[in-house]
Amino acid sequence: MSELANDRCEACRADAPILDDDEITFLQKELSDEWQVITRDGVRQLERVFRFDNFADALAFTNRVGEIAEEEGHHPAILTEWGRVTVTWWSHKIRGLHRNDFVMAARTDKLAAEH
Amino acid sequence: MSELANDRCEACRADAPILDDDEITFLQKELSDEWQVITRDGVRQLERVFRFDNFADALAFTNRVGEIAEEEGHHPAILTEWGRVTVTWWSHKIRGLHRNDFVMAARTDKLAAEH
Repeated sequence: MSELANDRCEACRADAPILDDDEITFLQKELSDEWQVITRDGVRQLERVFRFDNFADALAFTNRVGEIAEEEGHHPAILTEWGRVTVTWWSHKIRGLHRNDFVMAARTDKLAAEH
Repeated sequence: MSELANDRCEACRADAPILDDDEITFLQKELSDEWQVITRDGVRQLERVFRFDNFADALAFTNRVGEIAEEEGHHPAILTEWGRVTVTWWSHKIRGLHRNDFVMAARTDKLAAEH
């Protein structure tokens, strides 16, 4: 499990630096290979699909991701469907990826592994 | 509140008829104006955004929508974000809109009104 998963989010201000390509490549190695860096509406985001056997398990996972989001005051987009949950992390204030997003992605991987 | 909200889903088989334009127009009048009929990946879907004051209220609504989905065995896509939930209903088996989707949309409106 990535060391990142044990980190906490730091305060993210509007003038915090967006991660550059090298930093993203470096941090992405700490996560499950299933995380993709995508660009949506001009904003780089970190996205992964998690699979489940049914809707109830998917929704339970959504709630666990919601719990860590509330703990850290950093909130993803969570798409809940029958048998799958798509989690997308990015930093709204800087319209891009911050180290916090990789911390939260690593913590999301940890939640899935505990499941 | 729409009478549709008091209906239940009927069994939806793979050979059930997809609603045509007239039927959709007729049923859409029973719902909040905020429901949009969209086409995604060639499949007509019924989608509405619900607004909330924070993440926790949005996630609580997601769970209430999840409950009615489980009751009826008919499951939407639910996108949970800070302050908003986007609910999308369609019938996977027929790759389009069935009357059931309008019943569930009306029930989703009722949940939001009760909130």
